[in-house]
Amino acid sequence: MDGFSLTRRLAAEFIGTGLLLATVVGSGIMAETLSAGNVALALLANAIATGAILFVLITIFGPISGAHFNPAVTIAFSLCGDIGRRDAGLYVFVQIAGAVAGVWLAHLMFDQQLLQISTKVRFGGGQWLSEAVATGGLLLTIFGSLQFNARAVSQAVSLYIVAAYWFTASTSFANPAVTIARSLSNTFAGIRPQDVPAFLIAQCVACVLAVLLKTWFFAPQRPA
Amino acid sequence: MDGFSLTRRLAAEFIGTGLLLATVVGSGIMAETLSAGNVALALLANAIATGAILFVLITIFGPISGAHFNPAVTIAFSLCGDIGRRDAGLYVFVQIAGAVAGVWLAHLMFDQQLLQISTKVRFGGGQWLSEAVATGGLLLTIFGSLQFNARAVSQAVSLYIVAAYWFTASTSFANPAVTIARSLSNTFAGIRPQDVPAFLIAQCVACVLAVLLKTWFFAPQRPA
Amino acid sequence: MDGFSLTRRLAAEFIGTGLLLATVVGSGIMAETLSAGNVALALLANAIATGAILFVLITIFGPISGAHFNPAVTIAFSLCGDIGRRDAGLYVFVQIAGAVAGVWLAHLMFDQQLLQISTKVRFGGGQWLSEAVATGGLLLTIFGSLQFNARAVSQAVSLYIVAAYWFTASTSFANPAVTIARSLSNTFAGIRPQDVPAFLIAQCVACVLAVLLKTWFFAPQRPA
Amino acid sequence: MDGFSLTRRLAAEFIGTGLLLATVVGSGIMAETLSAGNVALALLANAIATGAILFVLITIFGPISGAHFNPAVTIAFSLCGDIGRRDAGLYVFVQIAGAVAGVWLAHLMFDQQLLQISTKVRFGGGQWLSEAVATGGLLLTIFGSLQFNARAVSQAVSLYIVAAYWFTASTSFANPAVTIARSLSNTFAGIRPQDVPAFLIAQCVACVLAVLLKTWFFAPQRPA
Repeated sequence: MDGFSLTRRLAAEFIGTGLLLATVVGSGIMAETLSAGNVALALLANAIATGAILFVLITIFGPISGAHFNPAVTIAFSLCGDIGRRDAGLYVFVQIAGAVAGVWLAHLMFDQQLLQISTKVRFGGGQWLSEAVATGGLLLTIFGSLQFNARAVSQAVSLYIVAAYWFTASTSFANPAVTIARSLSNTFAGIRPQDVPAFLIAQCVACVLAVLLKTWFFAPQRPA
Repeated sequence: MDGFSLTRRLAAEFIGTGLLLATVVGSGIMAETLSAGNVALALLANAIATGAILFVLITIFGPISGAHFNPAVTIAFSLCGDIGRRDAGLYVFVQIAGAVAGVWLAHLMFDQQLLQISTKVRFGGGQWLSEAVATGGLLLTIFGSLQFNARAVSQAVSLYIVAAYWFTASTSFANPAVTIARSLSNTFAGIRPQDVPAFLIAQCVACVLAVLLKTWFFAPQRPA
Repeated sequence: MDGFSLTRRLAAEFIGTGLLLATVVGSGIMAETLSAGNVALALLANAIATGAILFVLITIFGPISGAHFNPAVTIAFSLCGDIGRRDAGLYVFVQIAGAVAGVWLAHLMFDQQLLQISTKVRFGGGQWLSEAVATGGLLLTIFGSLQFNARAVSQAVSLYIVAAYWFTASTSFANPAVTIARSLSNTFAGIRPQDVPAFLIAQCVACVLAVLLKTWFFAPQRPA
Repeated sequence: MDGFSLTRRLAAEFIGTGLLLATVVGSGIMAETLSAGNVALALLANAIATGAILFVLITIFGPISGAHFNPAVTIAFSLCGDIGRRDAGLYVFVQIAGAVAGVWLAHLMFDQQLLQISTKVRFGGGQWLSEAVATGGLLLTIFGSLQFNARAVSQAVSLYIVAAYWFTASTSFANPAVTIARSLSNTFAGIRPQDVPAFLIAQCVACVLAVLLKTWFFAPQRPA
């Protein structure tokens, strides 16, 4: 990773997070439009499209920037000392910027109004627990596959998200940049701005817990 | 595997089986809620989510505990002498505990009552034969891929379960811990407690038969 | 492959073809039952289940018998000199026997009458051309992936069949043993006995053409 | 690649592009026929079939011709100096011929009239932006996976197209030969001939931009 300039790494995070959000929001619009009220079918298409693009983005951007695309991942690596504080801050900034750009790109492709605010309610204890579980599980997936089978990271993260769209009540945002950006789309994938802060808190709590668990659970040495 | 402490191995079995059940039950609730009576669509989402999380869990926990998540697998390895009796007993115990915890986690995420008892009837010769076939096929999948292509185990088991959800009349429980835990959820994935024992017997019979077949069929040496 | 006794190789072909047909027919019954007349959804589940089990079966039986499960494949390898005539004859025999056993196993799991005769019409030039294309494409898939990336055979064949269920008008039988056995199931996957011979002829013609194409196209040496 | 004669490489491009189009158009016909107006389900089947066959075709033809199947890919490699001008011209010619042949093969398999002209409107700024994004993303996928993980190209391209069917408003043609050939099918996958030129322009613009981006972004050396 260190072989690439910071500019290129930030570009990878920006483009990657942008394409991720364009896929989440764009496939959500397409799926909702075509599925005529069949929400299960819309979510299935949304999950498959998201999982598929994640495999691609991690494959092509991973060697450049690490393919975080997610402030929770960057913060976790920062807590583990795998990325410096300044770089981590820049990563988070371009992730959020890229996420918003990706949402707007989806709106442009689907001939929608560029600037939107979501009205979709995502609120309550089940949602928050879901976000904590979703984020914690994502980080364990990344830690574990990096530890044991680094070539499988793209596949593992991709399939984790496909599953998490279905097994969490919130459909697994699991990503603060994604959460913020999706509040700017009043479509299938949206979330009301006032519901965003609780999602971010749940994600950050899970991030810290996952890092704590990792230091014991995925430690490489034999403990005793 | 032996490089990890028993505590860590049991933690892997507990967390892994828990996340497996959270996915089976959680995606079942999500799918049933969204599919408006289209059971084929609900089962498709349920199967894809389960297969996807299995790939992840085997990838990240396999190197620690072997990623059994299933008393039938642990008993089979015990019969083959690959795991000691005491460890096998502890594995089975934490698998059942983890499975129940996973079901309850799904209930919490979906704002459901924590304690439930299933009323879903799963009874009859076709169901029991299905469980025997499903369990036997799962064990052959594990034995065969471990024998010939150990890196493909996670993919093979994942895809086996996706298929078995559809080709067996019982939707392939194939796992005593899963069977017991699913009796505690009155949702899509549930099973009446009184139908559990026959499922367990079918799974155990298949376990013994699969081990017998393995000793000849997947023996590494040239037989003649 | 030659490290395994003929008995074990024939057992692999029998069990493998049996599980393949149990999946094709079983998932067809399940899908038709649950999909309430939505044939596209039934075919999608049928295709995914079939592709998934093919990956598994080729992974675990491939190193023993070559995982033909298909007289067209065995005949093609025989024409190429990769399997002797006597062994090829025995392979074809146990493939057909295994296929029939697999259909019956599916009937038993789904509490259906054991012995059935299909009444499903699959007749006409489009169907026969489809079978020729499906079989030829399957053989090119096998030849090409064996030539260039043998580890990808299971994935390539699995995904080829998923595609061929959809891009051919016949839903891609592409296998004489499968064709014969499916005439014995009056369910989603069935075919009228009187429609079988034309399917077999189309499959055999494609088999010969694919072998001819292979000798030039996938020849390893530089031709000029 | 250079180990194979030009004839064989052109045959690979012809057969590969032909099977790709037979799958796109054939699975579109099948899906539309069976889905009874459920367009989301039809597109899901169409996307899965297309992604599946792409994995196969790149696996078996990639080592022979590079598995371009797409004038935008050939032009991009030509701009990068990876293929000579004469060969590139011949590639594009056989890609278009193969694409048309594939469409006609699909029509024959589904007992449709051979010669058709599409009447399906695909017009407007959102469509053109979609095609530019789809083509640019495809080329980045190819460049990036070739750069970092050449064995993953078939999987990355396959999954990219699955996602792009859903996240672009045009369902991602992303291929001039595909665009031209699909104007000759008045079915699910069709496009009106008068809408073709704008698609081709968007694809070519994206091709040039992607090559420019690549020379900086995927350059192997450390820039500073």
